[in-house]
Amino acid sequence: MKRIGLNPVGWISQLSQGEVTLLTGTTDRELYKVFRDCCLAVLNSGVDLDDAAALFAPYESFRVELVRRERGVKMELIDPPEVAFVDGTLIRGVHEHLFSVLRDLLYMHVKYSGIEAHAASDNTTEQETTISITDMVFDMLRHAKALDGNDELNTIVCWGGHSIGLEEYKYTKEVGYQLGLRQMNICTGCGPGAMKGPMKGAAIGHAKQRYKKGRYIGISEPSIIAAEPPNAIVNELIIMPDIEKRLEAFVRAAHGIVIFPGGVGTAEELLYLLGILMDERNSQHPFPLILTGPEGTQGYFEAIDTFVGKTLGPAAQSRYQIIVNDPVAVARALCESKQKVEQYRLAMGDSFSFNWSLKIEPEFQHRFEPTHEAMAQLPLHRNQSVGQLASTLRKAFSGIVAGNIKAKTVAEIKRKGRFKLSGDPELMTLIDELLASFVAQQRMKLPGSRYEPCYTIAVE
Amino acid sequence: MKRIGLNPVGWISQLSQGEVTLLTGTTDRELYKVFRDCCLAVLNSGVDLDDAAALFAPYESFRVELVRRERGVKMELIDPPEVAFVDGTLIRGVHEHLFSVLRDLLYMHVKYSGIEAHAASDNTTEQETTISITDMVFDMLRHAKALDGNDELNTIVCWGGHSIGLEEYKYTKEVGYQLGLRQMNICTGCGPGAMKGPMKGAAIGHAKQRYKKGRYIGISEPSIIAAEPPNAIVNELIIMPDIEKRLEAFVRAAHGIVIFPGGVGTAEELLYLLGILMDERNSQHPFPLILTGPEGTQGYFEAIDTFVGKTLGPAAQSRYQIIVNDPVAVARALCESKQKVEQYRLAMGDSFSFNWSLKIEPEFQHRFEPTHEAMAQLPLHRNQSVGQLASTLRKAFSGIVAGNIKAKTVAEIKRKGRFKLSGDPELMTLIDELLASFVAQQRMKLPGSRYEPCYTIAVE
Amino acid sequence: MKRIGLNPVGWISQLSQGEVTLLTGTTDRELYKVFRDCCLAVLNSGVDLDDAAALFAPYESFRVELVRRERGVKMELIDPPEVAFVDGTLIRGVHEHLFSVLRDLLYMHVKYSGIEAHAASDNTTEQETTISITDMVFDMLRHAKALDGNDELNTIVCWGGHSIGLEEYKYTKEVGYQLGLRQMNICTGCGPGAMKGPMKGAAIGHAKQRYKKGRYIGISEPSIIAAEPPNAIVNELIIMPDIEKRLEAFVRAAHGIVIFPGGVGTAEELLYLLGILMDERNSQHPFPLILTGPEGTQGYFEAIDTFVGKTLGPAAQSRYQIIVNDPVAVARALCESKQKVEQYRLAMGDSFSFNWSLKIEPEFQHRFEPTHEAMAQLPLHRNQSVGQLASTLRKAFSGIVAGNIKAKTVAEIKRKGRFKLSGDPELMTLIDELLASFVAQQRMKLPGSRYEPCYTIAVE
Amino acid sequence: MKRIGLNPVGWISQLSQGEVTLLTGTTDRELYKVFRDCCLAVLNSGVDLDDAAALFAPYESFRVELVRRERGVKMELIDPPEVAFVDGTLIRGVHEHLFSVLRDLLYMHVKYSGIEAHAASDNTTEQETTISITDMVFDMLRHAKALDGNDELNTIVCWGGHSIGLEEYKYTKEVGYQLGLRQMNICTGCGPGAMKGPMKGAAIGHAKQRYKKGRYIGISEPSIIAAEPPNAIVNELIIMPDIEKRLEAFVRAAHGIVIFPGGVGTAEELLYLLGILMDERNSQHPFPLILTGPEGTQGYFEAIDTFVGKTLGPAAQSRYQIIVNDPVAVARALCESKQKVEQYRLAMGDSFSFNWSLKIEPEFQHRFEPTHEAMAQLPLHRNQSVGQLASTLRKAFSGIVAGNIKAKTVAEIKRKGRFKLSGDPELMTLIDELLASFVAQQRMKLPGSRYEPCYTIAVE
Repeated sequence: MKRIGLNPVGWISQLSQGEVTLLTGTTDRELYKVFRDCCLAVLNSGVDLDDAAALFAPYESFRVELVRRERGVKMELIDPPEVAFVDGTLIRGVHEHLFSVLRDLLYMHVKYSGIEAHAASDNTTEQETTISITDMVFDMLRHAKALDGNDELNTIVCWGGHSIGLEEYKYTKEVGYQLGLRQMNICTGCGPGAMKGPMKGAAIGHAKQRYKKGRYIGISEPSIIAAEPPNAIVNELIIMPDIEKRLEAFVRAAHGIVIFPGGVGTAEELLYLLGILMDERNSQHPFPLILTGPEGTQGYFEAIDTFVGKTLGPAAQSRYQIIVNDPVAVARALCESKQKVEQYRLAMGDSFSFNWSLKIEPEFQHRFEPTHEAMAQLPLHRNQSVGQLASTLRKAFSGIVAGNIKAKTVAEIKRKGRFKLSGDPELMTLIDELLASFVAQQRMKLPGSRYEPCYTIAVE
Repeated sequence: MKRIGLNPVGWISQLSQGEVTLLTGTTDRELYKVFRDCCLAVLNSGVDLDDAAALFAPYESFRVELVRRERGVKMELIDPPEVAFVDGTLIRGVHEHLFSVLRDLLYMHVKYSGIEAHAASDNTTEQETTISITDMVFDMLRHAKALDGNDELNTIVCWGGHSIGLEEYKYTKEVGYQLGLRQMNICTGCGPGAMKGPMKGAAIGHAKQRYKKGRYIGISEPSIIAAEPPNAIVNELIIMPDIEKRLEAFVRAAHGIVIFPGGVGTAEELLYLLGILMDERNSQHPFPLILTGPEGTQGYFEAIDTFVGKTLGPAAQSRYQIIVNDPVAVARALCESKQKVEQYRLAMGDSFSFNWSLKIEPEFQHRFEPTHEAMAQLPLHRNQSVGQLASTLRKAFSGIVAGNIKAKTVAEIKRKGRFKLSGDPELMTLIDELLASFVAQQRMKLPGSRYEPCYTIAVE
Repeated sequence: MKRIGLNPVGWISQLSQGEVTLLTGTTDRELYKVFRDCCLAVLNSGVDLDDAAALFAPYESFRVELVRRERGVKMELIDPPEVAFVDGTLIRGVHEHLFSVLRDLLYMHVKYSGIEAHAASDNTTEQETTISITDMVFDMLRHAKALDGNDELNTIVCWGGHSIGLEEYKYTKEVGYQLGLRQMNICTGCGPGAMKGPMKGAAIGHAKQRYKKGRYIGISEPSIIAAEPPNAIVNELIIMPDIEKRLEAFVRAAHGIVIFPGGVGTAEELLYLLGILMDERNSQHPFPLILTGPEGTQGYFEAIDTFVGKTLGPAAQSRYQIIVNDPVAVARALCESKQKVEQYRLAMGDSFSFNWSLKIEPEFQHRFEPTHEAMAQLPLHRNQSVGQLASTLRKAFSGIVAGNIKAKTVAEIKRKGRFKLSGDPELMTLIDELLASFVAQQRMKLPGSRYEPCYTIAVE
Repeated sequence: MKRIGLNPVGWISQLSQGEVTLLTGTTDRELYKVFRDCCLAVLNSGVDLDDAAALFAPYESFRVELVRRERGVKMELIDPPEVAFVDGTLIRGVHEHLFSVLRDLLYMHVKYSGIEAHAASDNTTEQETTISITDMVFDMLRHAKALDGNDELNTIVCWGGHSIGLEEYKYTKEVGYQLGLRQMNICTGCGPGAMKGPMKGAAIGHAKQRYKKGRYIGISEPSIIAAEPPNAIVNELIIMPDIEKRLEAFVRAAHGIVIFPGGVGTAEELLYLLGILMDERNSQHPFPLILTGPEGTQGYFEAIDTFVGKTLGPAAQSRYQIIVNDPVAVARALCESKQKVEQYRLAMGDSFSFNWSLKIEPEFQHRFEPTHEAMAQLPLHRNQSVGQLASTLRKAFSGIVAGNIKAKTVAEIKRKGRFKLSGDPELMTLIDELLASFVAQQRMKLPGSRYEPCYTIAVE
């Protein structure tokens, strides 16, 4: 048995005795398992695999222990993967990532464990809930030091599939390169594919410009990090408790967003953002949003655009720009939009590093648990506001992502069969067509594996 | 009316909406007054006066306001003293100090407002109390970033009178200079006299050694800062809620302590520290402690040493070294003791920046409110442990300090007459003699004003 | 006509009037042409081409001008290549490289223009010559700030072909990655192939280790930079006046050398280094030297090793280690040799950043002009010391490199026919076999072009 | 015998073998003595004495040796003064100053040893001379790294007596404090009195503004440094070869000049500067110049002003502003003049860190050797241009300074009697009155010693 002690670095080297007790005293088996799995994923940083089971199989004996010392807490790894070490020493970047996991998963968990429960209780107004969840997102980014240095209006969030072809991957790299040459930083979901390409490209652009402050921020969540371990470029890792908080972290920290071709997860992200931007209170809020891909993705974006047009209407369509096969144009557009963002933040007295003035409804903030029942009950019809419809569609797609790759939901599907979605015939047809096109384009899984749908669509 | 807005800097530029609400929402008139007075004291940094009333008189119309903005909070000063401005711009150091006041007085106050009440409740064990007060002290120092860079074992706390003669003042400067040449940093009570001299000397020593990381830490408390505004050298200001927490902050952050001649406040500090060091659990704890003064202070230190010997005994006397008129010897002794401190911290797994392993009994941590009643009831007799006796004597002296310079207590004395101290005849005589010698040596007040005692001593 | 002014940065922003006069006053047409071509090469940084003519064809109207200003000198580019600009602004790294060209080609040229002539004059002892050429190499590296930060014994020079296959390229990247993970820096000839791979790999290794001081030093020469423009990773560019000074710069700055498979240029480098190490005065000098390549290069290295064994003997063979297909072993060996290098430098009182104590004979320092006559007269026989033989072989290979890719020599070959090499039959056969193997392995030119030999071998 | 080796720091740790030979090979006894004396002066930094003989007496056995090592050169001190050491280690600032002495006195001396001789030769035009001396001044400042960071237009040169009363000293401190609060840096002649006060004040102003880039530049010369060793605040020491180069260094590096009351040396400085500013080519050149002193110095400044008015005329008077007893006004005036300086430098294309565009005639640049003969022959009459008259007066005063404190001239006076100055009766009377007033005000020597004039004034 190999046992390796890690000296605490950064914030964790300054803990009070009370905080140490909270950290080391947990007896929550479930939480420990998630923590251990996230550590294992981080120790496999840079390995390209989206099958958590395959990734973890060789490391059954791996464990993490927290050891109390007078001055704080020490982490010990038992039987960790060799790949994370150089001549017996843990790679520095991985070392930092492990303490990010500790910070977000244990420390922040303890601090905010009650927030969803609290929000659900009766004596809390919606207003309070919104603020407190946003405050939590803020506090987690602040504690991760992700807000320091985020005030130059140059953080571009890139969304897109982890499973994309070589052409599309090269394209994301090229967009990243052009952004890097313009001293933009990159924030993604932290895995492979469209989450890695822009970072890799930006790193070269930064090097050429002698830009020393390059940030490659990966924002993940416990239920997905194992399937998408941080790529080798990520130099800041943040793990938000669930997809809703993760999406909020993206939009609050971003100064512009690029969406590359992806699967149903990417559609979820687009609908989430459009749902928020459709909120009347955000109608004047400038939010640079570009959908882009290489030659050959026109069809893909037309399908998305049509779907948005037919479901949410032209106002939603007007919130994004589609640019095909022109990385320079993408980078320039984002550069130019900086000014508008700056003016708006100044006018609002808003922070440059955190987009407080964007209004987000509670239904976009609370955890949607995609059980069979919840999925079956989604109100997939037109008798609701555009914002609510966007929220409902977002949840439907979120559930399908879970059914595709989140271990727990995958298991549920195995046990109970596929999710059943139903609603307005016309709406259901639109959804059906969009999802079918993703499957046809192999956007549901990493190449090599055949996609087995986790849902059926029924017309009410 | 002159109104000046201050942009938030540092930690305060990153506040959540909830935190802003807490900060701006206080309706506590008393707290606001303390806050306003502390700000006024800070705006008078560098002015040598120990009469708060005289200092504040010209600024009756002065006010501070907190203004809520989307991104956080802004401070506004109404009719501030001219002395703090250069061509209309607030001096940077004062700007920082004001936000330190905001941080410690409002932000931390809100966070820890319940701690003394909580400690007083029945269902808290002593052990819990100790830890939670120490945790609070730690948290306040951590939040003030006073622990960053405190891990080189070179923080020397200097205690001593604010009212000292020129010879003694020069001596404190010379000791500071020798410490500065040896790359030691200085932490004091942040006012004039022996609190300023060592900083001034160290600054020159640091400059000669091209030492860029010079720290001049002032630790004050709300009830005393007006009487002892920060001197011009202080570059880190921390305001602890009361004298007990302040003393704990000193001893936890220090790697060595120098005590210069002073009055009853200095005696309080010495008794506080000896009381802790007499705790059996600290018997192996190395804690460098030097009493020093210029030629002519032999008598003063002999009086102190005799008092300690006769009250606490030779074991207490062995915890300090008296060095008269030899600044180089003082600095060398502290330099040499670094190694022992380092070994002990390593052996204990203790932090280099915060002395967790020093045990402090609750009676040294809780606020002692020097009312006439409390003073009268102090058990000034020998039927207690040495540690308890030290604690009792500390409280007696603490009350006299309050009666001398803390506005509220001074007013009480005016209204109700002098404190009455009583106890064992022999002990009372020792106390009486010590205090009388302070009065005779003009160590009770800044020169120029005649000392009017705030106590009488009775033998039971 | 497009004209772009570049503000001076770094050293050039501080020039005396006399220095400005020297810089702007040159009327040397030949020197100007070389300067202009080097600038053009640098503006094409990152473009992979080894045909200078093809590279330069589109930019016939390109010119550089130096403009005198009161405070110094400004550079102006007329009709520069678009590829070096982002939204109208020159890429920062290219900007820096241009001023490196100015520094080394004009400024240092003026300073040292007489050095070769001087050395040739009668009243200079050999000892003086050696020192003055070494001093010049030192001064150029110092002025380029290449010695600052070169004192951590972690600069690894990588030699190898610019024309290598994908497998070999990937291998150089992997070796660079392993070196980067161990916080080694990379110095190469600054072009593509084996000069780029190790830098690219090291950059990723550095990023993972959060190593901020990554150096990717390219050392080129005027006659070759056009054929091998700096790759995109190079962040320090130095242009030495000729191959002899360039080789000396490599060995004086290096703390270890890796030789990847290459063509005749690589053989020249190996013979140069072995010739020096065979000097008796260097017999105790530790100089880590590793020959390495991927699976399949055993044969290549055996051929080299055999050639060295049969020409220079087993003592020469003992100065290097051959490692096939094991990047980790290469990196570890270099790491471990640090200690020996450190001990030797300390024992000699030598600098960590410049290897003064390595003795280099004048014949390795002076420019060898590969005319047809000089090549024909090379004493390719065994009646000389091992060091002299190494020097002679080095010259022969150097001439062939020039005949392959240096524009001037290529033109000579076209005009006068191939070089004629002649000497001892046995030696000539060894040479013939080695060169033939390079041709067979396509190591003479970038893939796609057929190699046309520039020499014939005759037996005396 | 105590021998202490000093490791080379900074530029000296990177020397070529040729440079080492030059440094260690000097057999110039005279130069060595000067070097040794300057080192001794620097080792006495902070000691206030203007009697070199008294200062040096205790250290007769003191010597400095340069030791050649493979990598460069090492300095060794034999029997150095204790005051420069802390627990056996040389104070860092003194360590740096010693290498500044080595740099300017030996290294630069060797480089420029021929410059005055060269200038004197026939085949050099005046234009060339001016440029080459200015280039030398530039090169010395550049090599001392004094130009880096000198581009913020905030370097204020302060001139004034080393022998001043407490009131005047306090005033210079207060002016320095006000300049420091406005983030101005201070450059002086590096000794005590008006050369120390502004630095000390500025240091406190800088500390209060948290200004980290505080520069306290002392520019001295070999013949005077022993009489005025660097004060404790100087953090950059430069030693120019003679008073003419030193004055040029002051005016080229300055962005504004303050003249405090002083003696004849201060008058020399004022005349030097006015002589240059009277040059027609400088008539548009903005050069902030303020004469200032505390209450009670009105008379002093009136005397000076009258002297300037009667000798050089009202145009000269218009180049300065006299401000009595108002430090804030002095600092504000210099702050406000920044803008004009900036505009002029931009318009001229001039450097911000070195005032190239100020024209200085050769007669202000060449060394004036104040022999009895040279002094006697000074053309003290009105048949010359205003600039020439200023130059002549400057030389007369320069000679008197030498006669007062420069060891060599003091000895000459002892041997040959007083200097004889003669010329126009009216002019001689003006000079006589001015000098007499300095004597009366005790501005010729440090208090405590009686002034013995070194000159007599005769009317032709």
